[in-house]
Amino acid sequence: MTTPVPEEFIALVHRMAESAGAVIRRYFRADVEIDAKSNLTPVTIADRQAEEALRALLAAERPDDGILGEELGTHGLDREYVWVLDPIDGTKSFMTGRPIFGTLIGLLRHGRPVLGVIDQPILGERWIGGAGHPTRFNGTPVRTRACATLAEATVTTTSPDMFKGVEAERFAQLKAASRYVVYGSDCYGYAQVANGWLDISVERDLAPWDWAALVPVVEGAGGRMTDWQGRDLVLGAVGEVVASGDARAHAQALAIMGGDA
Amino acid sequence: MTTPVPEEFIALVHRMAESAGAVIRRYFRADVEIDAKSNLTPVTIADRQAEEALRALLAAERPDDGILGEELGTHGLDREYVWVLDPIDGTKSFMTGRPIFGTLIGLLRHGRPVLGVIDQPILGERWIGGAGHPTRFNGTPVRTRACATLAEATVTTTSPDMFKGVEAERFAQLKAASRYVVYGSDCYGYAQVANGWLDISVERDLAPWDWAALVPVVEGAGGRMTDWQGRDLVLGAVGEVVASGDARAHAQALAIMGGDA
Repeated sequence: MTTPVPEEFIALVHRMAESAGAVIRRYFRADVEIDAKSNLTPVTIADRQAEEALRALLAAERPDDGILGEELGTHGLDREYVWVLDPIDGTKSFMTGRPIFGTLIGLLRHGRPVLGVIDQPILGERWIGGAGHPTRFNGTPVRTRACATLAEATVTTTSPDMFKGVEAERFAQLKAASRYVVYGSDCYGYAQVANGWLDISVERDLAPWDWAALVPVVEGAGGRMTDWQGRDLVLGAVGEVVASGDARAHAQALAIMGGDA
Repeated sequence: MTTPVPEEFIALVHRMAESAGAVIRRYFRADVEIDAKSNLTPVTIADRQAEEALRALLAAERPDDGILGEELGTHGLDREYVWVLDPIDGTKSFMTGRPIFGTLIGLLRHGRPVLGVIDQPILGERWIGGAGHPTRFNGTPVRTRACATLAEATVTTTSPDMFKGVEAERFAQLKAASRYVVYGSDCYGYAQVANGWLDISVERDLAPWDWAALVPVVEGAGGRMTDWQGRDLVLGAVGEVVASGDARAHAQALAIMGGDA
């Protein structure tokens, strides 16, 4: 994250978040017919229409950039800039009327995340961070909190059911080493890490549209977000992630989740 | 839930919720020193001060009733009316800046829940239900949704870690039989059941202050909330609970969690 992201991109992602949010607010807690994709993730009409709204702005303002979107496909992955879109991350929360899902807008430059937005359109909460743009929560700069050891860490994940076999053993070890664990977080857990309300979020099997927006938000607030081996998350990453507010606790979480403990 | 709860009680619980909420809003996302009780539940200053606010109103208006409170003790359990108070249910959500915790105000008459409030003071969401007072969400009557079978059910619990041994096996069976599972709910999950956004919430090891307010909210919206054997929740109940929007799915969940499947 060296070259600062141009100011025009910051203005653009604000407009994108507003546009998707307007769609989502219309459907939240309304009766929406449910569709099922092959992987059985709940996908709603809101999800598709919100991604269309995001893409419409990109088509008008950044027609030559690539797009990698959860709902409506991918093109131009070889471009310098690739926008990575998840209109509703946390669809189960959305579907059950729980306002802790988020719209994720990430920007990759040469395959590396350089700008990220987590937008919660019901609560009116927006996190933006990127190269040269320290993370802001509704306009106010935020920082992660200190956490020297796992013993004082509050850890989150969306669902422990995502960890199987040896991964489940490692997660159990992480849980046993930590102070508190809280579930059901989705992208909101990473926003909480950025604000210094949580110490660690750990997950696996994330697609680029799940993590691309989160890395700049977490790292722009002073945290660290990598795969379980401590490598930067780049296009092609395996999707096992740990995000931490403090590099010391991060190293300890990696030692467990990466299998070196 | 036969004799209607007097109107004066409805007015009183609104004032109680407002009073506790004013305290809680002051401390949410603020730096609050953390205390540890013997059971290691996170307890904040907000928790205590909010319960004091609830008790101050009861002392003034219902001095002869009993009180059973999470933070500040119990008296008068032999009275006709006993108020059951949990100023912050979902302390981990509260502590991590996640606005899906709730203030719970329950009223027992002769040991049975007859009035309940779930109040989310950050979102400005309040559910009230009771004998003769069908459940309202911010003043609007709400109903649970139909769910004929577990196969179409969305199920929630706060943390699967609460289920041990044979209970964990039963919960795994319930999960396998259901359509979706979402974690991290606390009292909010029961409010979601009342509104027809979720089908089933299942938990164990609940204290009276955890369940007393929930029963009238769920049942006043057309749902059912019992222990795992299908018995009404009354003072002295073991604290294994299932709340469902539809009696048919409820019976199926009981068959599994009660060990009869």
